[in-house]
Amino acid sequence: MLRVGYPAAIAAEFLRDFPLEVELIPLPDDLDHEVEIDVWLPGVFPAEARRLWPHLRGVRLVLALVAGTEWIPPITGPGVTICNTRGAGNIAPAEWVISAILATLKYFPFYLDVQRSGQQWAHRAEANDHYARITGDARSFYPSVTVEELTGKRVLLVGHGAIGQEIERMLTPFHVELTRVARTARATPLVHAFGELDSLLPQAEIVILILPLTAESRGLIGRRQLALMPQGALLVNAARGAIVETDALMDALNSGRIRAALDVTDPEPLPEGHPLWSCPNLLLTPHAAGTCPQFTPRALAVALHNLRRYLAGKPLKNVMQTAI
Amino acid sequence: MLRVGYPAAIAAEFLRDFPLEVELIPLPDDLDHEVEIDVWLPGVFPAEARRLWPHLRGVRLVLALVAGTEWIPPITGPGVTICNTRGAGNIAPAEWVISAILATLKYFPFYLDVQRSGQQWAHRAEANDHYARITGDARSFYPSVTVEELTGKRVLLVGHGAIGQEIERMLTPFHVELTRVARTARATPLVHAFGELDSLLPQAEIVILILPLTAESRGLIGRRQLALMPQGALLVNAARGAIVETDALMDALNSGRIRAALDVTDPEPLPEGHPLWSCPNLLLTPHAAGTCPQFTPRALAVALHNLRRYLAGKPLKNVMQTAI
Repeated sequence: MLRVGYPAAIAAEFLRDFPLEVELIPLPDDLDHEVEIDVWLPGVFPAEARRLWPHLRGVRLVLALVAGTEWIPPITGPGVTICNTRGAGNIAPAEWVISAILATLKYFPFYLDVQRSGQQWAHRAEANDHYARITGDARSFYPSVTVEELTGKRVLLVGHGAIGQEIERMLTPFHVELTRVARTARATPLVHAFGELDSLLPQAEIVILILPLTAESRGLIGRRQLALMPQGALLVNAARGAIVETDALMDALNSGRIRAALDVTDPEPLPEGHPLWSCPNLLLTPHAAGTCPQFTPRALAVALHNLRRYLAGKPLKNVMQTAI
Repeated sequence: MLRVGYPAAIAAEFLRDFPLEVELIPLPDDLDHEVEIDVWLPGVFPAEARRLWPHLRGVRLVLALVAGTEWIPPITGPGVTICNTRGAGNIAPAEWVISAILATLKYFPFYLDVQRSGQQWAHRAEANDHYARITGDARSFYPSVTVEELTGKRVLLVGHGAIGQEIERMLTPFHVELTRVARTARATPLVHAFGELDSLLPQAEIVILILPLTAESRGLIGRRQLALMPQGALLVNAARGAIVETDALMDALNSGRIRAALDVTDPEPLPEGHPLWSCPNLLLTPHAAGTCPQFTPRALAVALHNLRRYLAGKPLKNVMQTAI
């Protein structure tokens, strides 16, 4: 009987659809003896998977519960087939991107700070000062600016995979001027190649990063790219922290050049006391965008679909690495 | 020549499209002598308009720069025609509603508090505790819940005017289960009448208030209605504060029954030290949803359109009161 190892932290209620002809082996985080399994569903945290791997024997197939699997081959080596769960985890991160953009443009971090002080109305006019300072728009508005709009903004979407396409769909009602960039240029819809990034950044009011971390994307947004963004532009990273050079980003934030919303950082977890925590014009969440109540059942459904194909001898879906 | 009074705070650059055949009279907030004008563009703040009115003579037409004009007749009396700027100010408040919903479901207030503490990762698991407490969903999730999704939620939209319809449009990508309620029932699209509210509230995960303040809507959401909302439901008020009974709302928030996002309050401005400031699970902005950089040019364009019709002797648009 096929032996399938899964994180013991997953409640049994989420596994009741798994077929009877496999043996489900719960793997506790603190596993301290060797376990023979054929298929491994690693947990979502790389550090836990790394700790577990030396205790696993016989693994031929890894069914990840996440879309980004770049951290798995360094743990397992090339001897296993790795599939991801493309499609299962798209909605929540795409929603996070829209949420982070809107929260920034509506100045929610500012309003929350003054809400906590219990003096919001006295500070209301500061929103207009913030707008003038960060955008460089010195016109005299009446009434004063208290929010910005997403509608009509120029958005540069860097990455056009499954989540990027969801983000594009969720941007539809806001009639943004969307430009797409990805590793490979495409014609329909028009996607520009990475090489054109420098010429596209100066027009971008919002830059969304939603691409895999690869040798090409590491450090893609560095000092020169940040300097090319317009004054007050918003950089949104829902991909991987190392796509952005952290030191360059902190300088751009601290000088009031740009704004940022980050679900991922480099390093990650961001250590206590790291200077990024206190940069201005920054919304920071702890790699939280993807794990909603629907995450586990959806990811397990995709993994289960592949497991059934494996049992039936059919070709697997979403293969990120084929065992050699 | 027709004399048009406008708030002196509006920069001249925003008025350059006004026709040459009218005389534009800037009205400073501290006007202290009588001014003869035919058409009045009052500022957006009721208190300022109230102070100005006794100094104005000859006003026949009021072209408001806002959609909600219920505060103007008590100032001017019935002797003037009042037009609003329906259509000009819809996008920003509709965006605010989507933003406030998403910011709440993504726990941005929580993450911002811990971002300020510089210890976000240490507090990450508290998001799951918050989810379990506010929703009453005690299932054991792996990985733990760090955000909720808007997608698929049951939304009750109370009010289906111009802004309500924009909100519905902006909700489209999230495939919510939308139910509409307004003062008058309609068939296409299906809109329920206020009388059905009590039977609809128990299904609503999100309740959006976007309706005018009238005798019928004042206190529409009181203690009974709040008690009918499901545990953890989110009440969003982008309409007028007095549509919700503040004391009942504070009790519902303080007992952890529901969540709220308010751009408007009763009283407004909310005084320093008011207990609403410190209620839990609340996102509060100071009637800020509508005034973006595009607000003044858009509102003036609608007012100008009506002014041209007035000059040409054509029927006015958006008439909220006809002079008697």
